[in-house]
Amino acid sequence: MIFNEFLENLESYEPGKPIELVAREYGIKPENIIKVASNENPFGSSPKALQAMRGCQPALYPDDSYFALKHALAVRFGCESANIIIGSGSDQVMEMAIKAVCNENRGILRAKTTFAMYDIYAKFAHAPVYKTQSEFHDLAQMAEIYTKNAANIGAVILCLPNNPLGECPDASEVYEFLELISQDTLVILDCAYMEFANFKDSKKHIKPAHVLSKFTNVLYSGTFSKAYGLGGMRVGYGLANTKLIEQISKLRPPFNITTPSLAAAIAALDDEDFVQKGIKNNFDEMPRYEAFASEFGLKFIPSYTNFIAIFTNEEKNSSILADNLLKKGIILRNLKSYGLNAVRITIGTKKQNDKVLEALRAEFA
Amino acid sequence: MIFNEFLENLESYEPGKPIELVAREYGIKPENIIKVASNENPFGSSPKALQAMRGCQPALYPDDSYFALKHALAVRFGCESANIIIGSGSDQVMEMAIKAVCNENRGILRAKTTFAMYDIYAKFAHAPVYKTQSEFHDLAQMAEIYTKNAANIGAVILCLPNNPLGECPDASEVYEFLELISQDTLVILDCAYMEFANFKDSKKHIKPAHVLSKFTNVLYSGTFSKAYGLGGMRVGYGLANTKLIEQISKLRPPFNITTPSLAAAIAALDDEDFVQKGIKNNFDEMPRYEAFASEFGLKFIPSYTNFIAIFTNEEKNSSILADNLLKKGIILRNLKSYGLNAVRITIGTKKQNDKVLEALRAEFA
Repeated sequence: MIFNEFLENLESYEPGKPIELVAREYGIKPENIIKVASNENPFGSSPKALQAMRGCQPALYPDDSYFALKHALAVRFGCESANIIIGSGSDQVMEMAIKAVCNENRGILRAKTTFAMYDIYAKFAHAPVYKTQSEFHDLAQMAEIYTKNAANIGAVILCLPNNPLGECPDASEVYEFLELISQDTLVILDCAYMEFANFKDSKKHIKPAHVLSKFTNVLYSGTFSKAYGLGGMRVGYGLANTKLIEQISKLRPPFNITTPSLAAAIAALDDEDFVQKGIKNNFDEMPRYEAFASEFGLKFIPSYTNFIAIFTNEEKNSSILADNLLKKGIILRNLKSYGLNAVRITIGTKKQNDKVLEALRAEFA
Repeated sequence: MIFNEFLENLESYEPGKPIELVAREYGIKPENIIKVASNENPFGSSPKALQAMRGCQPALYPDDSYFALKHALAVRFGCESANIIIGSGSDQVMEMAIKAVCNENRGILRAKTTFAMYDIYAKFAHAPVYKTQSEFHDLAQMAEIYTKNAANIGAVILCLPNNPLGECPDASEVYEFLELISQDTLVILDCAYMEFANFKDSKKHIKPAHVLSKFTNVLYSGTFSKAYGLGGMRVGYGLANTKLIEQISKLRPPFNITTPSLAAAIAALDDEDFVQKGIKNNFDEMPRYEAFASEFGLKFIPSYTNFIAIFTNEEKNSSILADNLLKKGIILRNLKSYGLNAVRITIGTKKQNDKVLEALRAEFA
């Protein structure tokens, strides 16, 4: 078989280990396993979303225009349905967008440490990757790299707040940054965790309607996977200028979300109480992880998301730590693949956090 | 915005109209609408699959290794899990495969009239399209075109049985054809409707285990969307040599099927009675459409699938026919976009067929 050469440089994304796998490999009962590795909603899904899923007819293809979901999102964000594209998770939206503008000569520009899928989608489009040297989103440095290489950059990607670190620039800084980018260049604002940032500090809140009114080259992407509790449903969305949406939509495969996903997403949007309750729990519980880190002299990053990145020390490096916890049925995310001696922990329910913190303390005691 | 040039030539796939849209546009109650446009299972989904869907936890990402589903498929088809890739519908499997081997210089080769998505995925890979001149799968002609252009063909695609026409070459002819293709060239056997062909005539039955044992360059793709009644769940699979699966898997986005889809597909594989009952109904009912066509002197193609393509006449062309039926709440597929004055009708339940045939007779009476 003759394969395309670009396949040689592709690496697969390493997802958080699923509960089933840990149960199989470690012989632990699934109900005794705590997964705090993939930033899923620890309260599960909204009862309304579950009801919608259970009542749907999965033999039938979904309404591929996603009429009702787009309408609900348009109302929510103060835009038109024509400003919206639906993806199988927001990462598919980004995949389509990158494919639409990037190529061998026009790459992506991103922060040094950010969501691993950006590079994978860049490679799918045969596009080079430019990145900052600073760990966090340093928008001044990003603007500088952009200015020097503008002709060779197809898409600038900001992760707001940033996965896997948790930091978040202010919205005003982001808006100023956007002014520096040519309207010829796509900017993707990956706002998968924006609901959390907005709750903690409204200065972080990127407003899609504002972005759409000012910039024709900016794609705001959001997801139902995190605050909305539908990680396993794979529904995300992109909001942008209609012309941009039209072009990206040419790359959307038909029926890219499922019939139950469509029903559940529409219902989830209608249960804001569930979402806000989960976010409140998140920030009620997060200080317990910060206290743990401080107690043992471990560096952590103040987080605007539903997870916290904690750096560990030399003798108990992140791989050892993650392995030890795995044996106890606790799945967290080792950030070694990001080049960091750190772990990322999703903030769970109070009961889950009790157990995770107990296990963490036992490691460092 | 600077978009990649190849977007200019892209056309979107035109899916069958969903029930919701017809209800909206024609003011017909959804329960009075019959959709025989997208070859979904008219009996819905297996009760076992529905139960599995309803019991799952959609807040959690699926086991991205698809361990249990691959195991069940491996048992079913007599291969190993390493021979299997899972896709969001079998069309995603084909998309990944085409992307892995095709490019500007290596195109696809297909029958003149076949599933529209092949060309779309070829264009996504910037690949040219070679096609036969004969309407049906003419394997001799295909081999001839292949031989003349072998260096420029990355993938040969056979649709067995063929959508949207319904014809199907014998498995022995396909196996002979495969012998003529270089092991450097990928061959995709799109067997989305194979369960139907096999029921009608076992000579049509392509056996994946046989294909895998003989050819390292052949990808067999199948789906849960048709006979297995999970059209809205988006689960398909590819079966091939492990090396081929490894390469194609590099292009698989993580979590490409949903948590409910995974649960439902595993359960659906365990309810063969449901599947066989649906297939039996299909071929019990199909002769009624053939009789209708004969009665009015309309040409039809003997079908090995769960649909039938019926050619219409000049005065009542396929667009008029499809529109007239739509006003009565019957959605069928106009094949005009395939360059044919024909409609494609999914074989429904007896009750659905009563109504569809009554409406068709009224048109031609």
